[in-house]
Amino acid sequence: MIKLIALIYKKPGLSDEEFYKYWKEKHGPLAAKIIPGLRRYVQNHPVKIPGLKYEADGLVELWFDDLDAYKSSRAWRQSDEAKPLLDDEDKFMVRDRITRYVVEEHVIIN
Amino acid sequence: MIKLIALIYKKPGLSDEEFYKYWKEKHGPLAAKIIPGLRRYVQNHPVKIPGLKYEADGLVELWFDDLDAYKSSRAWRQSDEAKPLLDDEDKFMVRDRITRYVVEEHVIIN
Repeated sequence: MIKLIALIYKKPGLSDEEFYKYWKEKHGPLAAKIIPGLRRYVQNHPVKIPGLKYEADGLVELWFDDLDAYKSSRAWRQSDEAKPLLDDEDKFMVRDRITRYVVEEHVIIN
Repeated sequence: MIKLIALIYKKPGLSDEEFYKYWKEKHGPLAAKIIPGLRRYVQNHPVKIPGLKYEADGLVELWFDDLDAYKSSRAWRQSDEAKPLLDDEDKFMVRDRITRYVVEEHVIIN
């Protein structure tokens, strides 16, 4: 399996509450439905802790069968079919700031 | 469950191969053995993809029962017991550059 970890940034003007609610309740189900080859999908919402400042507003994890499946999903984003997803991203996050890590997991304690 | 996601940075002078091998084979088992309250532990090793440049050299995920258990593990790092772990971190990564996110997972596709 190959995993994409993306750090995402809130669109200016949204409150934290609006951002996390939209991400989880609107964008999450849409992404889960239309991204091809997606095997597992987890959103990570940061917890407020005094003294700990976060640069990104959230991290999302998307699992694919292999590197080819991941690459296909990236190519798919250029297609007309992907437009609803990209339009939805623009509603709550700054798409240009997304930072991506394509990784292999090594599970030390399961 | 509460999850810590940390972005880590390779110590200057190590090759990529040395870094990933040390992290997985030496540091991973040590961390798994001595960090108190650790429920699950996954290392994420970035995959080389042409045109995709990574800022951090790896991301690690550590699960704890709850926020108190996470905070206890942070306090534990100040103790003498934690010294072997911190000394080991200094062998392969730049400890001052670690970037931490304490998050709650929202599983959209399991």
